[in-house]
Amino acid sequence: MSLLADLLSTLIDRRLAVTGGSKADDRPIETLCRDLVGNLGEVTGFAMACQILDRFQAMDPDARHAFFTFLNDEMDIDPDAVAAATTAYAADRSVANFRRLMRAAEAPRQELARRLNQVPGATARIVAMREDLLRFMKTDPALAKLDADLRHLLSSWFNRGFLVLRPINWESPAHVLEKIIAYEAVHAIDSWDDLRRRLQPRDRRCFGFFHPAMPDEPLIFVEVALTKGIPGSIQSLLSEGRDPLPETQADTAVFYSISNCQAGLAGISFGNSLIKQVARDLSGVLPQISTFVTLSPIPGLMKWLAEKGLDDRIDDPEAVRALATQYLLGAKREGGLPRDPVARFHLNNGASVHEVHARADLSANGLAQSAGAMVNYLYDLDRITENHEAFAKNQVITASAQLRALARKAMTPAT
Amino acid sequence: MSLLADLLSTLIDRRLAVTGGSKADDRPIETLCRDLVGNLGEVTGFAMACQILDRFQAMDPDARHAFFTFLNDEMDIDPDAVAAATTAYAADRSVANFRRLMRAAEAPRQELARRLNQVPGATARIVAMREDLLRFMKTDPALAKLDADLRHLLSSWFNRGFLVLRPINWESPAHVLEKIIAYEAVHAIDSWDDLRRRLQPRDRRCFGFFHPAMPDEPLIFVEVALTKGIPGSIQSLLSEGRDPLPETQADTAVFYSISNCQAGLAGISFGNSLIKQVARDLSGVLPQISTFVTLSPIPGLMKWLAEKGLDDRIDDPEAVRALATQYLLGAKREGGLPRDPVARFHLNNGASVHEVHARADLSANGLAQSAGAMVNYLYDLDRITENHEAFAKNQVITASAQLRALARKAMTPAT
Amino acid sequence: MSLLADLLSTLIDRRLAVTGGSKADDRPIETLCRDLVGNLGEVTGFAMACQILDRFQAMDPDARHAFFTFLNDEMDIDPDAVAAATTAYAADRSVANFRRLMRAAEAPRQELARRLNQVPGATARIVAMREDLLRFMKTDPALAKLDADLRHLLSSWFNRGFLVLRPINWESPAHVLEKIIAYEAVHAIDSWDDLRRRLQPRDRRCFGFFHPAMPDEPLIFVEVALTKGIPGSIQSLLSEGRDPLPETQADTAVFYSISNCQAGLAGISFGNSLIKQVARDLSGVLPQISTFVTLSPIPGLMKWLAEKGLDDRIDDPEAVRALATQYLLGAKREGGLPRDPVARFHLNNGASVHEVHARADLSANGLAQSAGAMVNYLYDLDRITENHEAFAKNQVITASAQLRALARKAMTPAT
Amino acid sequence: MSLLADLLSTLIDRRLAVTGGSKADDRPIETLCRDLVGNLGEVTGFAMACQILDRFQAMDPDARHAFFTFLNDEMDIDPDAVAAATTAYAADRSVANFRRLMRAAEAPRQELARRLNQVPGATARIVAMREDLLRFMKTDPALAKLDADLRHLLSSWFNRGFLVLRPINWESPAHVLEKIIAYEAVHAIDSWDDLRRRLQPRDRRCFGFFHPAMPDEPLIFVEVALTKGIPGSIQSLLSEGRDPLPETQADTAVFYSISNCQAGLAGISFGNSLIKQVARDLSGVLPQISTFVTLSPIPGLMKWLAEKGLDDRIDDPEAVRALATQYLLGAKREGGLPRDPVARFHLNNGASVHEVHARADLSANGLAQSAGAMVNYLYDLDRITENHEAFAKNQVITASAQLRALARKAMTPAT
Repeated sequence: MSLLADLLSTLIDRRLAVTGGSKADDRPIETLCRDLVGNLGEVTGFAMACQILDRFQAMDPDARHAFFTFLNDEMDIDPDAVAAATTAYAADRSVANFRRLMRAAEAPRQELARRLNQVPGATARIVAMREDLLRFMKTDPALAKLDADLRHLLSSWFNRGFLVLRPINWESPAHVLEKIIAYEAVHAIDSWDDLRRRLQPRDRRCFGFFHPAMPDEPLIFVEVALTKGIPGSIQSLLSEGRDPLPETQADTAVFYSISNCQAGLAGISFGNSLIKQVARDLSGVLPQISTFVTLSPIPGLMKWLAEKGLDDRIDDPEAVRALATQYLLGAKREGGLPRDPVARFHLNNGASVHEVHARADLSANGLAQSAGAMVNYLYDLDRITENHEAFAKNQVITASAQLRALARKAMTPAT
Repeated sequence: MSLLADLLSTLIDRRLAVTGGSKADDRPIETLCRDLVGNLGEVTGFAMACQILDRFQAMDPDARHAFFTFLNDEMDIDPDAVAAATTAYAADRSVANFRRLMRAAEAPRQELARRLNQVPGATARIVAMREDLLRFMKTDPALAKLDADLRHLLSSWFNRGFLVLRPINWESPAHVLEKIIAYEAVHAIDSWDDLRRRLQPRDRRCFGFFHPAMPDEPLIFVEVALTKGIPGSIQSLLSEGRDPLPETQADTAVFYSISNCQAGLAGISFGNSLIKQVARDLSGVLPQISTFVTLSPIPGLMKWLAEKGLDDRIDDPEAVRALATQYLLGAKREGGLPRDPVARFHLNNGASVHEVHARADLSANGLAQSAGAMVNYLYDLDRITENHEAFAKNQVITASAQLRALARKAMTPAT
Repeated sequence: MSLLADLLSTLIDRRLAVTGGSKADDRPIETLCRDLVGNLGEVTGFAMACQILDRFQAMDPDARHAFFTFLNDEMDIDPDAVAAATTAYAADRSVANFRRLMRAAEAPRQELARRLNQVPGATARIVAMREDLLRFMKTDPALAKLDADLRHLLSSWFNRGFLVLRPINWESPAHVLEKIIAYEAVHAIDSWDDLRRRLQPRDRRCFGFFHPAMPDEPLIFVEVALTKGIPGSIQSLLSEGRDPLPETQADTAVFYSISNCQAGLAGISFGNSLIKQVARDLSGVLPQISTFVTLSPIPGLMKWLAEKGLDDRIDDPEAVRALATQYLLGAKREGGLPRDPVARFHLNNGASVHEVHARADLSANGLAQSAGAMVNYLYDLDRITENHEAFAKNQVITASAQLRALARKAMTPAT
Repeated sequence: MSLLADLLSTLIDRRLAVTGGSKADDRPIETLCRDLVGNLGEVTGFAMACQILDRFQAMDPDARHAFFTFLNDEMDIDPDAVAAATTAYAADRSVANFRRLMRAAEAPRQELARRLNQVPGATARIVAMREDLLRFMKTDPALAKLDADLRHLLSSWFNRGFLVLRPINWESPAHVLEKIIAYEAVHAIDSWDDLRRRLQPRDRRCFGFFHPAMPDEPLIFVEVALTKGIPGSIQSLLSEGRDPLPETQADTAVFYSISNCQAGLAGISFGNSLIKQVARDLSGVLPQISTFVTLSPIPGLMKWLAEKGLDDRIDDPEAVRALATQYLLGAKREGGLPRDPVARFHLNNGASVHEVHARADLSANGLAQSAGAMVNYLYDLDRITENHEAFAKNQVITASAQLRALARKAMTPAT
C-alpha cells in the first residue's frame, strides 16, 4: 500500500519536473494574472497558474507586498461597471441583466484564485498566501479588501460539508502527529512521549477536521478525556502517573483543548461544528457517556482583577472561584457580550457555564492569566439551540444554579 | 475494513434517525430559508438545513416550481442596496465600503446553498436540485437567475483542484460500475459482460473525475483503448472476439468515449482537464505510448449533408470521407466557430483534426448521424496551448496535412 | 488509490517479465524439486520455484498425473529412516534425537510446497494444484498420501487465526462479486440483478472468509437475511417484489446459503467458524437481533422416502413436514450419526433442529431432493458448546419441543 | 476511516468482554490443553484457547517453566506409536498406514499451537511464548524439543509467501515507528528527530517485512541510503547537517542497517529475502540505481586482532584496512566458514566482499568491535546465485580484485 504511494511520489516528482520545466514565461506576474483570468486562461491556464504560484513563492517580502497591493487595488471591483449594471437590472430584472451584474460585482481576484487552484497542492498554497497577507495587514490595513475576497472564497471551499472528521491517535501517521505537537495552543505538548500520553490511553481521544485537498494538514483539533465525573483541574487530567480509566466506566467527555492549525484560515470558524460533531459521534459509540463539558482557561481574569484592584485575593481559592464566576457571568464588553473571549466562543455555541475551579491550572501561564482558575462549559445537546438563541438575541448567559447562586452572593456586599 | 463501513453505516443510520426526529418545524420553507441565511443560522442551522432539504425532497413538481420561483425572485440581489453601496464605494474605496458592496452584490440564495451544504450528503442533493431546476427552465426561462448563482457556486466547489482522478476498472465497486453502465452516453454498454470487456483487458483503461463529497458518483469518465497505430473504426475496437494487445506493444492511447454523468453540473466543463490529465498520467506510466487521439462521432454530418443536398453520396466511402472532412474543416456556424459540437469541444481544448474514416461506426445511430463516419482528434501535448490559442483567438482549425489536402481537393469544383 | 494499483501492476509485470526470463533450466522437474528441497534451495530457490510452478501449469493431464505420482511415491517418508530415528529416540529422548526423528518423519514434499510458496501468488496455485490432485484421486486413490500432506499443510496455512472476515456487499469489487455468482452452490444467482437483490437491500448481508495471500478469492461465504420472525420458505425470502425490512425491526438473522468456494481446500472446514463469527458480530452491531437460524435444504429426504416406500405422500404438506422431521431426528447412518449431511454439519456445530417447513423450496431442485421441505437449524450461542458435546460424544440430536412431539406422534402407528 | 477503527475497537472490546466472561474453567491448564487437542476441541475450542492463553499470560516464571516442561515432555511424540506405525507402513505403504504414521509422528503440541491460534491476536502471543521459551532454554536446554516444534510451525506460518514488504517512512503510523526506534540494533536511533532524519529525506528509504496476522509489528527492517558512489563511512551517511541528494542523481543503494525485531522468531531467516526484494523493487522504480551494497560492521575484528597480537596497529588506517581485509577473506572457523558472523550472512546470501574502509564507524561501539573499520558487501543481482553456490558448496569467498590484491599483499611477509 505504502510502497505504491512511494512509487507514485516518484512518478509525480518526475511529472512535476517536466511540468515545472515548461519554458519560463518572462512576462510580469501582473500580466500573467490578467491573462489567467481572461478567456484563454480557462483552457490553457495550467502552466500559467504554476508559474504564478512558483513566482510568488520565490518573492521576497517587498515583492509580495507589491503583489498583494496589485491584487487589492488593480484586480478590484469596478464601481462604474457595477453602477451601470445595477441601473440596468433595476430597470429590467432580466436574466441577461442579472448575469451582467453578477459578473461586474465580483472582483476578478476571486476568479484568479479559483484558476490558481487547478494546480495540485494549490489550495494549501492559497491558504499560506492568506497567512502572509494577514501579516502585511497589520501594517497595511488597506489590504483588507483582498482579504475579504480570499476569506469569502475560502469560507465557501472549507464549507462544513467538505470537511472530514478524523480521529487522531497513536496509529496516525507521524507527519500528521508532528503537526499536533506544533499546533497545540492551549496546553503545550513538549515531546513525543507527552503526545503519546494524550493519544494512546484508552480514556483519551483526539479528533480533527481535515479538508480533502489538504489531507495531511489538520484544520482544527480537539483533545478529549473520558472521565468519571467532571474534573476540576488540568494537572490531574494530564498527570504522568495516572491510571487510564476503562471506557466502560466513563460517564463524561471533557474537551480540554481546542487548537486551530491554519493561520491562513483565520476567521473561518470550525470549532463550533467540531465540538458538536464529536459530542454526537461519541454519544453514538459510547452511549454511557452522558455529559459533555470543556475544561477551559479564563484568559482575561487576571487583567480584570487588576483593573478592579482585586488581585490581592488570588491566594484564597474560595475567593478566586467566586471572583472568576463573577467575571464570567458579569463582566461585559461594549455591546453587552461577555468580556472573556473563550466564554464568548462557547456561549455563542450554545454551551452554559457549569462550574468554576480554583487551583485548576497551576502552570506559569495558568497562574498568570487566571490565577489558576478554570471553567467547565457544558454542552447539553438538547439545549444548545435554545441557549444559543438566548445568547445571540439577548446576550443571556446560561449558567448552573450553583454558579448563579455564587455570583449573586459575590455581588452582595459583605456587611 | 468493509465490516467497519458496515458498522458505521448502522451507527449513522441510528444517529440520523435521532437527528431527523428532532421536532418538526411547522413554519413555511420560505421562513426557514430566511432564518437559515440570518445571523442565528450560522450556529444552529444544522436542523434547519436538514428540514429544508427533506421538505424539498418531498415536494411535488408544482411545489418545487414555486420554491424555485421564491429563490429566484425573493432571495435575489436588491438593486437599491447595490446602487447605494456602489455609490459609497465609488466615492471612498475604503475597506468598510468594499465589504458592504460585497455583501449587497451577492444574492442571499448563495449563502443559503452554502449553509444547506453542512448536512452530510447535501452536496449531491444540491446538484440534484439544479438538475430539477434545469428541467423547469425549459418552460420557465426566467428561473435562469437562480441557476446563474447555483452554477457559480458549483463551479467554485467543483473546481479542478478538488477533483480526484481515479481509474475505474473491474476491481472497482459494483455500485460505481453500475453508474458507468447507466451514464455511458456515446457507445451504450448493454450488460455487465459488455462492461467487463471495456474494463478488464490489459489494453483497456477507464478514468473518471470524482469529488470527495460525492465519492461514489463519477462526474465524468473517459474510456481508453491502448492500440498499435491509430484505429479507424469503433467496431474493431469493441469487437467481442478480439485478442487484447500486450501493453508493451501499444504506442497509442485512444479516447473513444467521454460521458458526463451529472445533469446537475451541466455547463461546468471537466472534459478538457480529464483528457489532458489522463494523457499526462499514461505517458508517465507507459512511456512507450506517444500518440493520444480520440475516435469521435461527427454528430452533425448527416444534417449538413441533407441541407446541402449531398446525402445521396453516403454509400461511397471515399465520398463520405471527403465530405466529412469538408464539413469538419469548413462548416461554420454564426460567429465563425465550427458547426459540429464535438469538433468545437476538442478544437477548443487544443486538439487538431487528424484523420477521418468512413464506415467507422456502423451502428444505427452512427449511420443516422454521420453516415458511419468518425474522426480522430489528436492531442499533441506539446502543441495544445498553441492550437487552443489559434482557435480561441482566430477560429483557426488545425488539421493534418492529408486532411487539409483532401479538403482543398473537395472544395475544388470537379470539372 | 487505484491509479497506484495500476502503476504497480505495470511495474510488477515488468519485473516478472525480467524474472521469468531468467535462463530456462532444462533439467527435469523432478531434479528441480529435489534441488529446491536441498540445502542450496533455501537461498537461491526463488527462480527454481518459479520454474516448477510454471512447468506444472503448462503440463497436460498425463504429465500432471506423472508428477503427482512422483511426489506421492518418491518424495515420501522413508520408513527405514523413521524406524532408525525412532529407535534412537526411544532409547534416548535427547534433543538431537528428537530433531532427527522430526526430520525423518515428515515427507520432503511438505518442504517442497513451503519453498514453492515463496513465489508471489503461489498459495493460490498450490490450492489449485490440490484441486487437480483431488480429481486424479477419483481414479487413482493411491495419491491420497500426497493429499494427506497437502491437506495438513493447507490446514495449517488456512488456520482460523489467519482468515479475515469481510462483508461482501454491493460496494465490493466486481471481480470479487463475479466469484460470488460463480460459487453460489445452494440457490443459484442467475444475473447481476439477482446478485444485487441479495446484497443491496438493508435487510440483507453477506460475509466471507478471505486469506491474506489470496485477497480476491473468497474461501467460503454465507448469505444472511434479517427478518421479523423465522421464515418458512425460500421463495418469500428471495421474492423479487418484496419490501426490504428496516434493520431496526428485524429480530432474526437467517443464514440461508453457505457456499464453499475453493475445491482445492476441500476437507478444511470453515463453515463452523464462519456462522459463529457472523452471529457474534451481528449481535454486537444489531443488538435487537436475538435469534440466529438457518433455512436449510434436506438433501437426502426424497431418497429416504423412496427407500421407505413413503414417496406417495409428498403432496400432503402435513405429511411431508412430519416425515421430514422423522427423517432428520430418526434416520441414521452406520455409526449412529444422522443420515442427512447438512444435518450432520449443523448439529456437529452445536445447532439444534428447530422447525421444519413443507412447501418451502418449490424449485425443481427443492422438489426433487426434499419434496419442497426445508428446515431451520437454530444457533443459540449460549447452548452451542453443550449441544455440540452431546452430539459429538453421544450422537444426541437436540431438537425443539414441537418437533420432538411431532416425531413421537409420527412414530406412533395410526390405529 | 480511523473513526471506524475506533468504533470497531469499542465493539471488539465489548465482544471480548462477553467472551472473556464465559464461565472460567477451573480445570488445570494441562487438562485444557489435552482437551483442546482432542476431537471435541475442533469445534468448541475457542473458549478453551482463550483460557489457555490468558492463564499463560498470568503465570509467574516458575509456572511458565513448569508449563513448558509439560509441553516438552508430556505433549511429545510417543516413540512406541511411531515405531508401530512405521513397521506397518514399511510392510504396506497404504494410504491408511501413511495417515497413521503422519499422525503418530507429529507431537500433539503442534496441533495445540494451531488450535490456540484461532483466537484473535494469538499469533503474536505464540511468538512471545517462544521468546519466553528461548530464555528458559539458556538454563534448561532440554526444552529444545518443544522449541523445535514451535520453530517448525512458525517457519511454515511466516513463510516468505505470506510476508508483505512495506515501506516505512515518515507517513507511517507512530505505533509502528516507535518499534523501529526500539528495534534498531546496528546504529541506535536516539530520538524521534533522529528517526525523522533516517526516514524523511528523499534519499532515504526503509522497508520492512510484516505478517498479516501481526500487522503492526515489523519482523525485520532494512534502512537504505541512496547515494552517488559507494560511501565509506557511517558518519557521513548519518551526519545531521548533510544535504539530501535528489533521487535522480543517485546511482547506488546502500543497506546500512538490518534489524530483526522479533526475538520469538529467532532462527527463522528473513534478511536474505528482504535485501533481494528491496533491491529488485528499487531497481524497478529507480532504474538509475545500478549498485546495491551494504555498509556493514565487522563485529569480530578486534577480538581476532587481539588474539593475533595485532591490536597495536589500530591507529594506522592503512594497516586497519589491510588487516580487516585479511580477517574477512582469511579468518575461518571450524568447518571452513568465515569467522565473522555478518560476513557469513551476506556471503551465504550470494554477496561479495567489495571494499573495506578504516575510520568508517567512529562510535564507541564501532571502535571497540572493529577499530572503526566497516565493509561493503556487494549484491550483484546477476551473480547472487553463482556466488551463493560457490560459497555454500565450497566455502569460496567472492571478493573484488582490489581486496584480493590487498589480502595477498598482507599475507606476504614484509622483508
